Amino acid sequence: MALEIERKFLVLGSPWQDLPRSAVMRQGYLLASPERVVRVRIEGADAMLTIKGAMQGIVRSEWEYPIPLADADELLKLCEQPLIEKYRYRIPHDGMLWELDVFIGDNAGLVVAEIELESEGQTFSKPAWVGEEVTDDKRYLNANLLRHPFSTW
Amino acid sequence: MALEIERKFLVLGSPWQDLPRSAVMRQGYLLASPERVVRVRIEGADAMLTIKGAMQGIVRSEWEYPIPLADADELLKLCEQPLIEKYRYRIPHDGMLWELDVFIGDNAGLVVAEIELESEGQTFSKPAWVGEEVTDDKRYLNANLLRHPFSTW
Repeated sequence: MALEIERKFLVLGSPWQDLPRSAVMRQGYLLASPERVVRVRIEGADAMLTIKGAMQGIVRSEWEYPIPLADADELLKLCEQPLIEKYRYRIPHDGMLWELDVFIGDNAGLVVAEIELESEGQTFSKPAWVGEEVTDDKRYLNANLLRHPFSTW
Repeated sequence: MALEIERKFLVLGSPWQDLPRSAVMRQGYLLASPERVVRVRIEGADAMLTIKGAMQGIVRSEWEYPIPLADADELLKLCEQPLIEKYRYRIPHDGMLWELDVFIGDNAGLVVAEIELESEGQTFSKPAWVGEEVTDDKRYLNANLLRHPFSTW
């Protein structure tokens, strides 16, 4: 088990526009409840099955298993529909890695930046394009964007 | 993806009593709905994460992934409680393998025998201790025994 400790922010401007476009990331949920999440994700040729426990503040337990791409393709069909689709950009800044998700489909228009931390209190510097923090706003959880996509806000 | 094609029967007498006792099998469900199932199972030193699709008659899709035992121990705590616990005996008969589950805990007293088939119409011979077929009785699904254990029938 790993601990996922993550903070999430809105994004100012379009800092990804000069970066090479990532493969589209497609993810679906076999289960998305407050207590537990079972996610299937494909990014390019890589596929992952991920289980997450309940959020405890900004911390949650996480178990990740690489699975065959063909399995993931089948499992995405078994997931709640529609899927979440987004482009992910990975942007290093001051020794940390920011992940910037540019959503498409029903969540088009939404862009969020995430940073994964080693501990809850870890400090870090923000790039200029990092805006308001939305870590505690449950609407931005991918599992919630499934049922309440950004286009309906 | 594999197809799980299984028939299930009650058991006459106690055909397992002279067989070596298996390791206890502990299994839990991260999700158990009619549409999909995510199961965690430990048997001895082996642990498995299994995803199943909806039942289509006696056929359902199945994806199985071995996972580290330590992960499975943690994931069982994340599952709906209580867990399903049983002893499994594997009994060869006429070229086929019967799996006989002797439940303990809340399902103590329940014993079922399962046979996995290659196709829905496959014929097979039954050992003398195989009783009434319960394939179509949803009460006997392990995922249902969780919420409606045999002791409450």
